[in-house]
Amino acid sequence: MDYTSILNKLRPTEQEKTKIKEISHKIIDFLNDYCKKESINANTVLVGSVAKGTYLQGKSDIDIFITFPLETSMDYLKEMGLKLGYLCNEKFNGVASEHYASHPYLTSEIEGFEIDFVPCYQIEDGSQLKSAVDRTVLHTNFIKANLKESQKDDVLLLKRFMDMTGTYGSEFKVGGFAGYLCELLIVKYGDFETTLKEASKWRYGTVIDLMDYKTSKLFNDPLIAIDPTDKNRNVAAALRLDKMAEFIQSARNYLNSNIKEEYFNPINKNTNKENLLNQIKDNESEFIVVKFNIPEIPLDTLHPQLKKTVESLSEKLADEEFNVFASDYWTDEEKVAVFIFEMASSTLNKIKINKGPKVFIERGCKQFIDAHGLENCYIKDDFLVMNVEREFTSAVSYIKHVFTSENIALIKIGKNLKDSLLDSYSFINLEDISSDSSEFWSFIDDFLNPGQYIKR
Amino acid sequence: MDYTSILNKLRPTEQEKTKIKEISHKIIDFLNDYCKKESINANTVLVGSVAKGTYLQGKSDIDIFITFPLETSMDYLKEMGLKLGYLCNEKFNGVASEHYASHPYLTSEIEGFEIDFVPCYQIEDGSQLKSAVDRTVLHTNFIKANLKESQKDDVLLLKRFMDMTGTYGSEFKVGGFAGYLCELLIVKYGDFETTLKEASKWRYGTVIDLMDYKTSKLFNDPLIAIDPTDKNRNVAAALRLDKMAEFIQSARNYLNSNIKEEYFNPINKNTNKENLLNQIKDNESEFIVVKFNIPEIPLDTLHPQLKKTVESLSEKLADEEFNVFASDYWTDEEKVAVFIFEMASSTLNKIKINKGPKVFIERGCKQFIDAHGLENCYIKDDFLVMNVEREFTSAVSYIKHVFTSENIALIKIGKNLKDSLLDSYSFINLEDISSDSSEFWSFIDDFLNPGQYIKR
Repeated sequence: MDYTSILNKLRPTEQEKTKIKEISHKIIDFLNDYCKKESINANTVLVGSVAKGTYLQGKSDIDIFITFPLETSMDYLKEMGLKLGYLCNEKFNGVASEHYASHPYLTSEIEGFEIDFVPCYQIEDGSQLKSAVDRTVLHTNFIKANLKESQKDDVLLLKRFMDMTGTYGSEFKVGGFAGYLCELLIVKYGDFETTLKEASKWRYGTVIDLMDYKTSKLFNDPLIAIDPTDKNRNVAAALRLDKMAEFIQSARNYLNSNIKEEYFNPINKNTNKENLLNQIKDNESEFIVVKFNIPEIPLDTLHPQLKKTVESLSEKLADEEFNVFASDYWTDEEKVAVFIFEMASSTLNKIKINKGPKVFIERGCKQFIDAHGLENCYIKDDFLVMNVEREFTSAVSYIKHVFTSENIALIKIGKNLKDSLLDSYSFINLEDISSDSSEFWSFIDDFLNPGQYIKR
Repeated sequence: MDYTSILNKLRPTEQEKTKIKEISHKIIDFLNDYCKKESINANTVLVGSVAKGTYLQGKSDIDIFITFPLETSMDYLKEMGLKLGYLCNEKFNGVASEHYASHPYLTSEIEGFEIDFVPCYQIEDGSQLKSAVDRTVLHTNFIKANLKESQKDDVLLLKRFMDMTGTYGSEFKVGGFAGYLCELLIVKYGDFETTLKEASKWRYGTVIDLMDYKTSKLFNDPLIAIDPTDKNRNVAAALRLDKMAEFIQSARNYLNSNIKEEYFNPINKNTNKENLLNQIKDNESEFIVVKFNIPEIPLDTLHPQLKKTVESLSEKLADEEFNVFASDYWTDEEKVAVFIFEMASSTLNKIKINKGPKVFIERGCKQFIDAHGLENCYIKDDFLVMNVEREFTSAVSYIKHVFTSENIALIKIGKNLKDSLLDSYSFINLEDISSDSSEFWSFIDDFLNPGQYIKR
């Protein structure tokens, strides 16, 4: 297939490239000169996709890493890192905001580009690692040394393909493929199409071991991509099983498709409230929707906590014999989040069976009878059992029960969510949500029509 | 404990004993004389609980077995057996009806007693067996030789205890302990109370091997009681696991009870329609009740077919995600039968998930997609799945679907039931059943209050 026209849209423009080169050099020169002049033992380098030449058009976040010798104290590194960042920000009239990865760093918007100033240690290999960001320099060096010029296009194709099929990005919200992992796949398999062909055949536990470290036994992950710069690290550790599966199936779908170009374009989303409500009506499911305020915490903390909480509640509903067809969460990442449960059945009768020991366990039977009274016990198959009154005959009443400070420990709730959830939650009707909330209705579209990203 | 007053009610009266002895001898003498006179090579003997002296007061069915030499042809045995039975019936002014066990036999009511005339072969041990009834003579001889006079009372206590706790009787309807098995238990354990104490400690697969045959490995039953007259037969083969479990728990309950006498009396059953309907209302369950006509078949064929059918339908309902709390059948054993399903939830939404292969199975995924269309498929965890419309959103509509000649094969239906079920079934309301049908309401009481027999 001829990817020229697609690549023309993916490759950064010459203007973009020139501008980025200019700004990057300007900043790095300024910082290195300043450090030399002030006798600060630090060396500033360009890292990330800009340094590697694997960034997509218009997605050119510039990563500037200020590296310190290993003997530098962590306190000094943090302080000096931020100070140099702010210095640059002032010098080039930026707009700064502090962020936090393994330690604080500064993001500055300069001339329309988002620039991260991250302090880190100078290390030679993974064993010297002092903070998680230290290995970024090693990754950059490895890709610069091992990715051929022509393969940069293949990385762009793969990143775009993954982005448009919903599997790109290692942040928790997605749980997909990191940029570095994409690059390693291209180094491994040679080009974009071969990568898809090979991925079509992946099994659970497939190993990519470019340096032949033979350390795959250390990991029990769906995909094992041993970091060439650290034999004890799986680059694919954050890749969720379902995202790996979606990528495998996307790859097959793509290879069998007659409209391959479409896989590089976004799908058409349905965000029409009336239309989506009609789909819901067709399903004849009861929808339980819980809305609550979220605390101010980083997104990579917020998302896993929301996911864990909704999954735990869903499991508990199933334990109580409510039939959950599907569940998920949504958040605007600013103020509110929503748990949604599509119920296959949400009401139950008033009694259930409490199962005791097998009748052959004499001691266990005695204890069960002592605890519950002989008058309530009977035999079912070879178990001693009893009927007990069901406390909750509707899923909503069960959720209300759980969402109290006494009972919230019944589910695994994200610890930062607990207070705001209990204080602010309410059951809402989808009908009452504004048809203008297109992000929300887009989520409902995803919820009702799973898998639309992986096919065209 | 002093069992005198209980035994006084269980032992046959002197009058009863005299009468039975008189009739039995009269019949046996007549048949033996006749055979001698007519040169028929047959010997008539008294067998069963009357012969063994282990029958309960008022439960004195007389078993007369006409035994033929092993070389007799089966045709001759059948013909002559019936002929001799009819001869006796006429001679003593009985009212005869033909029955069928392993071959036809005659039952005759003579002077208020029910007398079975059963032809069989004279065998010395189980290996010579030509028909299932042949071993009855061996059983009778074994018990007469091995049950001490005083132990007959223990057999009566055990039979009555089992009868009142719902575990006596090897016919399929009960699935409990045969009379012969009761006698073997007393021979094994010595007396009634020791039997209960030992039964309290039974495990799954407990072996009773009076003759030390060491053949228990031949059997994989909950209780293994090797027939002293046939080392390849388990006397407890027909004992259902739940009935064994109920006996074990009954025994424990009895041993711990302060009102032991009550275990020899029937429990008080509730057959009050209004009261039972109120219990049902309290459960907040939907009750699905199907009534249909039964064919004229032996009870030991009818009961297993009804049980198999209702259990299979219950499993299918669960497969379709309907939540069945309990199910059972009832029959008047003459005209009609009823299947009853108490539903914890009986309605569902309109969609369900059709699960395909794991995404790692490339070939299987291709087949799934070819069969169902890519547009319908999505990934759930690491499975390829699709949403499909649920054909049945109510348990009743599913049952209606199954109860058609096209779809009845979806369940395991008793072959003799099929036609009459399909021709005559209807859904009924419990409210519409006459409050006079005390046997039916007694069944509903059992259904709603399981385990009432095993405790006092």
